[in-house]
Amino acid sequence: MSSNNIIQSSQNKKHNNHLPKINYKEFEKVIKSRRSIRFFTKEVIPKIVIKNSLNNALLAPNSSNLQVWEIYWVKNLNKKKKLIEACLSQPAASTAKELFVFVARPDNWKRNNKLMLDHIKKNNLNSKLFNYYSKITKIVYSQGFLNLFGYIKKILVIIIGLFRVIPREPTSFSDMKIWSQKSIALACQNFMLSMRAYGYDTCPMEGMDSLKVKKILNLPSRAQISMVIGAGRRDKKKGVTGDQIRFDNNLFIKIV
Amino acid sequence: MSSNNIIQSSQNKKHNNHLPKINYKEFEKVIKSRRSIRFFTKEVIPKIVIKNSLNNALLAPNSSNLQVWEIYWVKNLNKKKKLIEACLSQPAASTAKELFVFVARPDNWKRNNKLMLDHIKKNNLNSKLFNYYSKITKIVYSQGFLNLFGYIKKILVIIIGLFRVIPREPTSFSDMKIWSQKSIALACQNFMLSMRAYGYDTCPMEGMDSLKVKKILNLPSRAQISMVIGAGRRDKKKGVTGDQIRFDNNLFIKIV
Repeated sequence: MSSNNIIQSSQNKKHNNHLPKINYKEFEKVIKSRRSIRFFTKEVIPKIVIKNSLNNALLAPNSSNLQVWEIYWVKNLNKKKKLIEACLSQPAASTAKELFVFVARPDNWKRNNKLMLDHIKKNNLNSKLFNYYSKITKIVYSQGFLNLFGYIKKILVIIIGLFRVIPREPTSFSDMKIWSQKSIALACQNFMLSMRAYGYDTCPMEGMDSLKVKKILNLPSRAQISMVIGAGRRDKKKGVTGDQIRFDNNLFIKIV
Repeated sequence: MSSNNIIQSSQNKKHNNHLPKINYKEFEKVIKSRRSIRFFTKEVIPKIVIKNSLNNALLAPNSSNLQVWEIYWVKNLNKKKKLIEACLSQPAASTAKELFVFVARPDNWKRNNKLMLDHIKKNNLNSKLFNYYSKITKIVYSQGFLNLFGYIKKILVIIIGLFRVIPREPTSFSDMKIWSQKSIALACQNFMLSMRAYGYDTCPMEGMDSLKVKKILNLPSRAQISMVIGAGRRDKKKGVTGDQIRFDNNLFIKIV
């Protein structure tokens, strides 16, 4: 995502041509037929469908392109059994042909920032971009030992914010959690829609024991479980369990 | 999302038939041609495109279907001017034909829970569902005065968690922020992909002054700005500013 207008270069006309013509009706079918599926059949999901859906997930936009995300495809039977238990053994997990854990990794931002700098140097990208990842991100995402730098930023933001606009977050690890959880959620939605487009279905589960899930995946405590997503072929008899209930859109969509 | 396997009923066969045949190649075009666009043309977005994209946004899955989200379409010129400033006047905001603010409303869960109970009663839905929204959600999402109930839950969760699996969150308003931000992010991705499917483009912006944005929209302090999304027709010369940089997928996709 653009947290600054730095990612600008005029050399890239190639990216702006060749926009494909899209039959939007096919897309509408995807978005409208996606439902959270509670029961799956035993049908195997083709490997190519999983691979493409995972790759599509990582095409989601993400904050400062720092890609602080991870997806675990849990195939090991013992781990899978434990993961189903961690999902409270709900049928959306126990009947899922495959289980995926979507994880936010705010703790990985420094590693990825370095990868970005390496990429910029290697490809001789523009100096504004280099400046962004060598200076700006380090101020924005560092919180310092015991969050001390975060506190200093918070105070400065309040003072400077009296006189001009200024990005208010992140100034704590709590903010970093939200920051990274937003990006991985965008990837989750890409994944779920992709599965649907290929004829398969999903169920996102948040009601689970996140601590147990971290243990199963050997994740450090700073890693953040976003959701477990079960996937498979929709059980046509009981996969969907009712109307898609949405309250009046006027409650949520406001024109101001 | 299913935080429990309660939303089950066998009366709903109709939802499981009529799965449309989908040309996945059209979907792949959408997902692959979506980029964060930094410059838009002056072309007007047809109202039907905006309306459909907003409606599609709200078809995203969301936690316990509590729909703790809001989308502000900022049309008032004075508000729009201020919103562009709050987005640090970056071109993705200043050239956007339309600006939308995606907001998480964890503070609205009780209102929506009541709407859900009303809906269940009115439509005579099954008793498990009624039980979920009359008992379970009230335990899960209430944090109490000064978070006291949250603290009690946190201690109980630690103790019970020694013996069995148990959902660990939310036990604080901080958890509620993450909880609601995940759901609105899913909606954001639906919106951005929809715009693309209809031939238009978007740029999600998180680097903005969230406090100013709240003031512009008259939002209470507990409302959480997820992102501002600029939309319009992609400027073919400078809309996209470079390759879509993604590090090696093996860094992020793990098979365990």
